Parts: sequence; structure tokens; C-alpha cells
Amino acid sequence: MKPIVVDAMGGDNAPSVIVEGVQEALSVGIPVELVGDPARIPNYDGITLHPALEVIEMDDEPGRAVRTKKDSSIVRAAERVRDGHASAMVSAGNTGAVAAAALLRMKRLKGVNRPAIATTLPVPGRAPKILLDSGAMADCQADWLHQFARMGSAFAQVRYEVASPRIGLVSIGEEPEKGNQLVKEAHHLLADDSTINFIGNVEGRDVLDGDVDVLVADGFTGNVILKTLEGTVQFLVNQIISALSTDDAAEVGAEALGHLAPIAAELNPDAVGGAMLLGVNGIAIISHGSAGPTAIVNACKVAQDMVELDLVGELAAAVSL
Amino acid sequence: MKPIVVDAMGGDNAPSVIVEGVQEALSVGIPVELVGDPARIPNYDGITLHPALEVIEMDDEPGRAVRTKKDSSIVRAAERVRDGHASAMVSAGNTGAVAAAALLRMKRLKGVNRPAIATTLPVPGRAPKILLDSGAMADCQADWLHQFARMGSAFAQVRYEVASPRIGLVSIGEEPEKGNQLVKEAHHLLADDSTINFIGNVEGRDVLDGDVDVLVADGFTGNVILKTLEGTVQFLVNQIISALSTDDAAEVGAEALGHLAPIAAELNPDAVGGAMLLGVNGIAIISHGSAGPTAIVNACKVAQDMVELDLVGELAAAVSL
Repeated sequence: MKPIVVDAMGGDNAPSVIVEGVQEALSVGIPVELVGDPARIPNYDGITLHPALEVIEMDDEPGRAVRTKKDSSIVRAAERVRDGHASAMVSAGNTGAVAAAALLRMKRLKGVNRPAIATTLPVPGRAPKILLDSGAMADCQADWLHQFARMGSAFAQVRYEVASPRIGLVSIGEEPEKGNQLVKEAHHLLADDSTINFIGNVEGRDVLDGDVDVLVADGFTGNVILKTLEGTVQFLVNQIISALSTDDAAEVGAEALGHLAPIAAELNPDAVGGAMLLGVNGIAIISHGSAGPTAIVNACKVAQDMVELDLVGELAAAVSL
Repeated sequence: MKPIVVDAMGGDNAPSVIVEGVQEALSVGIPVELVGDPARIPNYDGITLHPALEVIEMDDEPGRAVRTKKDSSIVRAAERVRDGHASAMVSAGNTGAVAAAALLRMKRLKGVNRPAIATTLPVPGRAPKILLDSGAMADCQADWLHQFARMGSAFAQVRYEVASPRIGLVSIGEEPEKGNQLVKEAHHLLADDSTINFIGNVEGRDVLDGDVDVLVADGFTGNVILKTLEGTVQFLVNQIISALSTDDAAEVGAEALGHLAPIAAELNPDAVGGAMLLGVNGIAIISHGSAGPTAIVNACKVAQDMVELDLVGELAAAVSL
């Protein structure tokens, strides 16, 4: 297998935690290389580093950054996949820029209208759920949502070995006539598609708790769901920690938090390795900006699996059915 | 003050908990009456009951139900407000039907394009936030969102005495150019409006944690946020209760849950009394379907306050600025 190329410059704690993650990945036998600015990376002994002297910042406008920063680590990483030097790319950098670079350099898969970002939502005590699009395309058409459903179904099969993934369309009521115009139109397309296991509309309350494997939404709605979910979990975790850290709770607080720690650990997005850009001609994994070394190792493992299981081929087949 | 009319038939536990709530409201001096089917209400001694022999069910299609069930409690309640017999209506029934009945019977306020449902989000340890539209209008135009911002601002002033409510537009990035077409267009309208304190775009993670008083969204996005928030809180509460109820946690579980109970209590939507339909010519409060007697009493108190403080007049003034 060709190596996986990792963006050394992307993420809140780059490059140090990225290098640490890559070292760990190499130590467990995953072929990994770095791309980034040698002058800014303190210590990359034993790791192959492909130079890229520009950096796309987290707050750069994605499309513009990809067009103007041609020697950035994100753009160079996408080019290494395009040119066959790398089998996949991993970045914890600017999400929009990774999506734009992958789209512009690797190009769309044949038959795909628009790519989508598939985010894995870890659910304590249960199988994870996949949410797509979680932010690539803010304005969508119904037939794009239809393709997202097909790609999400294929991804759930390849990545999580779900035999017949249950596909839900995010709306504001279970009935087909509930929702905005986009969703009402998409509902009919999904309902008429015998290649997927469409279970109908799902609501915000099903995001964690519903009997559904893949949640389909436009990128605006998907991103709002993702951020609301993350924000709510973080807010409650903080509230719980402070309630159990008062003097009043001193006798039971520490032990109680110990019993709650596994829930927090299962909700940690680091465990799932990152989001996947579906619909481009290559594997691109977008890790959380706050990704630690573990998230990077997990992202590399996922990338390796997806290459070996030919995710890209499976997606192309699903879309062309 | 004219009495507040309460829909006896609306809600998961109607009519018994509704009657109980109304009795409590009367006992604290709030003028309240019921509307509903006398044959289905076991005991309403001492309460004025206006007969309405039909019931709009929770899963009825709202517009159709309002058109065909003319003698339903929801429609009759809206008519009592329209005709000046009641000063406000409260229902824990079908949200869409309450909104449709209020709109069709009370009519829009002069100058209002579309009404919006303003939901109060309780936030532990902080002032509550207002989210609108949380489900009245699934497809919106930018100028409607602009009016939602003005109405939300006036509502926060009247209802929560916030002097200069901070208005945030829900999007997928803080920068004005982030979002879907609708939000990008609305951003400019809000930014150019000197009558409101627009702080810019906010994200899903700001719903509980952000420094913002009013969250503006189209009804589809708002409803998805509300349900995602409620679902996430409920899921985590269940997870925490089970983690602290195992034999392993026996020694600390009960006491720890006691320390966490205030957080759960503050998150309970019953405390805020219900959502408010803004933009119609009258006061209409929509309580949660699972509303208990306390929620009904609180809704009646809020209705009384909003009548006395002339919310409708303030909304009309805000829209016409």
C-alpha cells in the first residue's frame, strides 16, 4: 500500500501533536508520511516529510485559500493522492479547505453531483451513527441528498459492517409531508430507491437515540446538528463536573465522576478518528481541529482500512446503481 | 383582565393534568377558563367550561385539522381571543394546529409577514435563551428572518427584561459569508438594522453556551436545533442515571444524583411555561405536549404577564420601526 499522507500543519495543536500521532502510527506498522514546512516542525526524525511551505489557517476562506496557497500542506497532500504517491490524506486543518482541496485536486467521482462530509457520531453503549452532509455543501438540491443517502449507506457498510444500513432523512416530523421543500422532495427520491434501506424521516431527537444508522441532511442543517450536539454535551459535562466538585459533594464527587467517565470517553470524537469526505476520487479524512495524537493514529488506521476495503470503488458503484 | 382560555383537550395527559393546572392557576388568582368537550372531562367543578365538541389530535395535519374541525377546542380557543372574550389562549396540543388556528382566526399583526414560534431554552445557572422560529415556518425568506429578529428582541425585552437583547443569527461559521444563501442574505438585513443589537452569526455550540439572548433561524433549522438539544439532554440524563444506579455505584449514586438534580430541574421545559407564537394579533402560548400541571400554571402566569405588559402592542411597534 502507498503511504498515507498526513498534514503536519493542520489543527489547533499542530505540528507537535500531529508528529506525535504519526510516530505512533508508524510504530504500529501503518505506512505514513508528513507534508508541511520543515522549518516549523521541530522534530520529525525518522519520518518522511514532503515540503510545503505555506499554511492554510483555520479561519482562512476555504476556496480562496486553496486557490492562492498552492504550496500549502493541505493542497500538496491532496496532490500526492491525486498523483498516486499517497493512498489517502489526513488533515486536522481547516475543514472547508480540506474539502475544497480534495474536490479541486482529486476531482469528483464519476456520477457524483457534490461531495459530502460524513461525520461519525459516537453513541455511548451503541453503534455509532453517521451524519452526512455535516458541512461541505450549505445549499443542496434534493438529488444531492439522494446521493448522500446512497454514499452514506455504502460507507456504513464498508466502515462499520452494517449489512443493511437504516437511512433516515432529517426533518421536523416523521410524516413524508413534514419538512421544508428540499426535504419533502428528497423524501420521495429516497422512498423510491430500492437500493437503500430508507426508514423515513427522523428528527433531532433521533440523532443519538433513534434506531437509525445514517442521518441525511443538507450541509447547513447537518453542521448545525453537529455543533448543537457537541455544544450540548460539552455544556452538560462542564455542569456535571462543577456540580460534583463542590465542597458539598466532596465525599462522593470523585467516585461519581469515575462512574461517569466511561460515558464521556465514549462520546469523545477522538475515538472515531475523523470525518470522511465522500464523493471525491480518493480518501480524505478530516480530523477535529482539537485532535490529539490518538485521533491522528485512529484517522490513519481508518484511512488504511478504507484503502484496503476500496471505499472509493464501493461509493462509485453505489452512486451508479 | 379578560380570562385566559386554556385548551382542555391538548397534550399527552389531557384533560386531567390540564384541569389540575387550571385549578391551581385559579387558586393563585389568575382568571382562567377552559374550552373542551364536557363529556370527556371528568371533573371541572368550579371552572367555567366553554364547549367544543371536536378534538385535534397530536398527529393531525395542522392546516387541514383547523379547516375541518371547526368545533375543536383549539379553534374555539383562538376564536374566543379574536372575539374579545379571552385575553390569551394556552394549549399543550398539536403545535402546528395551534399556530394555524391562531394565524387564521386572530390574523397576523399589521406589517408582519409570517408569525414565528419563540421557544425559551432554559440554561442552568444562566439567563434563558430565546429560539425563534422553532417550527412555524419551515421555508423562510430573508426578510421574514429579519422580522423574527425584531420580534424576538421585543419579546426578550418584555418577557425577560433584557434591556438590549443580543441577537444572533444561526449559521455554520461566525463570518458574514458563512452559511446558506438564506442566512447570508438575512445577515446583511440584520447588520443594517440599527433598532436591534445584532451580534452576528452564532453556531450550534452557542445554543446553550454562547453570549447571546435570542437565536434567529428558519423554522426548519430552529425545530431541528430544539429537538437535537432536547434529545441530547434526555439521552445523557438517562445514561447518567443508569451509570449511577449500578450496584458498583451504590454507595455514591444516590447522593451524586442528588447533587445533579438541580441541573436537571433547571433544564426542565415545564419551568418556562411554553412557547409563544409571535406575530399574530393576540397571545397564544403553546405548551409542551408532555406538560404537567406546573407547566400549565406557568403558561397561564406568562400569558397574564404578557397581556398586562402589552406584548402584542410592543411586537407591532417593533415590526413597524
